[in-house]
Amino acid sequence: MLKLNPHYAELKDSYLFRRIAEKTRLWQEAHPGEKLLRMGIGDVSQPLCSAVIEALHAAVEDQASMERFHGYLPENGLPEFREAVAAHYGTRGVRIEAEEVFVSSGASDELGDILDLFAPESPALIMEPAYPAYVDATVIAGRRILRLPARREEDFAPLPPEGEAPGLIYLCSPNNPTGAVFSREKLRAWVDYASAAGAVILFDAAYEAFIEEPELPRSIFEIEGARRCAIEICSLSKTAGFTGTRLGYTVIPKELERGGSSLHAMWIRNRTTKTNGVSYLLQKAGIAVFSPEGQTQTKACIGIYKQNARTLMSALEGTGLWYCGGKNAPYLWVSCPEGVGSWAFFDRLLNDLHIVATPGEGFGESGEGYIRFSTFGNPGDTEEAAGRLAKYLG
Amino acid sequence: MLKLNPHYAELKDSYLFRRIAEKTRLWQEAHPGEKLLRMGIGDVSQPLCSAVIEALHAAVEDQASMERFHGYLPENGLPEFREAVAAHYGTRGVRIEAEEVFVSSGASDELGDILDLFAPESPALIMEPAYPAYVDATVIAGRRILRLPARREEDFAPLPPEGEAPGLIYLCSPNNPTGAVFSREKLRAWVDYASAAGAVILFDAAYEAFIEEPELPRSIFEIEGARRCAIEICSLSKTAGFTGTRLGYTVIPKELERGGSSLHAMWIRNRTTKTNGVSYLLQKAGIAVFSPEGQTQTKACIGIYKQNARTLMSALEGTGLWYCGGKNAPYLWVSCPEGVGSWAFFDRLLNDLHIVATPGEGFGESGEGYIRFSTFGNPGDTEEAAGRLAKYLG
Repeated sequence: MLKLNPHYAELKDSYLFRRIAEKTRLWQEAHPGEKLLRMGIGDVSQPLCSAVIEALHAAVEDQASMERFHGYLPENGLPEFREAVAAHYGTRGVRIEAEEVFVSSGASDELGDILDLFAPESPALIMEPAYPAYVDATVIAGRRILRLPARREEDFAPLPPEGEAPGLIYLCSPNNPTGAVFSREKLRAWVDYASAAGAVILFDAAYEAFIEEPELPRSIFEIEGARRCAIEICSLSKTAGFTGTRLGYTVIPKELERGGSSLHAMWIRNRTTKTNGVSYLLQKAGIAVFSPEGQTQTKACIGIYKQNARTLMSALEGTGLWYCGGKNAPYLWVSCPEGVGSWAFFDRLLNDLHIVATPGEGFGESGEGYIRFSTFGNPGDTEEAAGRLAKYLG
Repeated sequence: MLKLNPHYAELKDSYLFRRIAEKTRLWQEAHPGEKLLRMGIGDVSQPLCSAVIEALHAAVEDQASMERFHGYLPENGLPEFREAVAAHYGTRGVRIEAEEVFVSSGASDELGDILDLFAPESPALIMEPAYPAYVDATVIAGRRILRLPARREEDFAPLPPEGEAPGLIYLCSPNNPTGAVFSREKLRAWVDYASAAGAVILFDAAYEAFIEEPELPRSIFEIEGARRCAIEICSLSKTAGFTGTRLGYTVIPKELERGGSSLHAMWIRNRTTKTNGVSYLLQKAGIAVFSPEGQTQTKACIGIYKQNARTLMSALEGTGLWYCGGKNAPYLWVSCPEGVGSWAFFDRLLNDLHIVATPGEGFGESGEGYIRFSTFGNPGDTEEAAGRLAKYLG
């Protein structure tokens, strides 16, 4: 008799975004024709930029051509894509070899897959509030979780804890959901901690493109010693609007070893065994993102979301509600009014203002009392939402 | 200290196709300018059909448009894609609900991911010669392998064995590498065997579109009882030339349960946790494959590969070498000349005829003494290879 993975049964009942979707659907059914202002899930609203669109059309034509048709690609990525990513790191002074870059279908997919490299025995440290998939993927792997509550007093960017040493450490900076960004000093403390413990940091840099302040690190590899203790997982979802197009990349330094085994070599073996690479079309789109035109255009698009953030921040200023994020991250993390729980505040925003946000509790217990606003909506909706919030809460 | 997955260290040294690529590269370097006829890896040579190309261009335009832009998609697949696949099964009399269809990035990717549903304790039965990734993914999962040698006497399509019952059963029909196809009676014996043992069959149907004889099953769900013991994993790689474009689908029936848990429900949870779905562009391409034009065009393309198979079969007829496959599968499985090992025959074909084939031993010990020819090359190369083989072996 086949034995199933027993850990699925240990997962909590409902995945956050599905629960929000369900509540939203019920509201919409009860209020047909009324417009919802969706600021819940961090999904982009702006179309792909023209450099990417042109590259995609050209790649499609390649696939129509006998001479330029591409079949199986190298599992780890097209050399041209890997070189474009490495060169992009180079522009910020971070030296990465092209061979250390692995193409992926996005950060979420990669965070699921990469756990295959690790035995389930070593516990994982997860800072909470956290992206729910960190917790769920860790539970599915049968790995113990060491929870580290991130608190307002430390700007939601805590230092490493005392106590049991983890094997894996999830860090997300800029943080989803709080928008907190690790300073260089704090990130150095984490690298030193992981190095001393022999742990590996999974550094989720999906939101790095939103960092404005030049002194804040956008890659963990800006920190001395990180090449021996960290894997960086990136995505074009938020950088270039690829949430529905799907492409990402992962950097595994060649120096990263544990117990004499190279994680770089293991990941090559994993990819060549368990995948046949990522679509030619999508990799060509990714190369276009890193072209000069692609960089100019994607930065202009990020500027739209940054303006959304400023619109919301202005609206919140007058309400007396504490918040953080928005400056170096595409999320605002807002304290609920005194005595109101985060699901209760969610319901109030939905029913009274027709705004969908994300209740902080969905990101773990320490998110209770907060709500997250995404700044990825279209500017018109964001302005309308900001106006309603200012009036209602002011 | 982090513990790595110890099973990577148990993998055999080199993945078959990488070894072939390396030998081929060395030959090419030593013979610059000389043309190699590549019939090794099963990679397609014909471009995507026009229905797919049109759908891709239109989907790219959607991603350029403010009104039609698509962000995150349902993780399990676009409803339109799932319905198209279910309807396609319907045309062959197999009733599948759209909700039982899950989009994937291809069969190889899915075969890696889906093992997450199963605890490592139960052994997996693998028929050999086998697609090497079955073995490697099973080793990585720390699962014991029960090897079932497939022999010429039983047309490389063996019946279930006596002895220890497996938990998982890999079946591939039409088979890679042998081209063998299970008859309805044999497949029924496997379904009955799995049902009695409480095992789950992973049915790899990547080559189903190559079956010519109408009495042969193209889906395991043509067999009574399979909905309670099988998962079918399909791909558009060979059906529609998507090896470099990447798209597939998996069917998990709602009746499939073990120990009170629904594998269908578990896979929904897996996908919503560990992925953010498959690219909008690729799913629109997939929908086009199942349109009337797409079906006509992809069948015409398969006709080209089938003509390649006939060309090679004619050439082999005169050589006295035994072979199978080619009729209902895109591979020919050819006995090496008396006393010649499969890597030795590989080297001889490479050095003397400048033909790249795949040594049978690479698919497991019981593949020794055979070599595999792919029929996915372009017709001109295939005719040239057939001519050289006939002359050299005749």
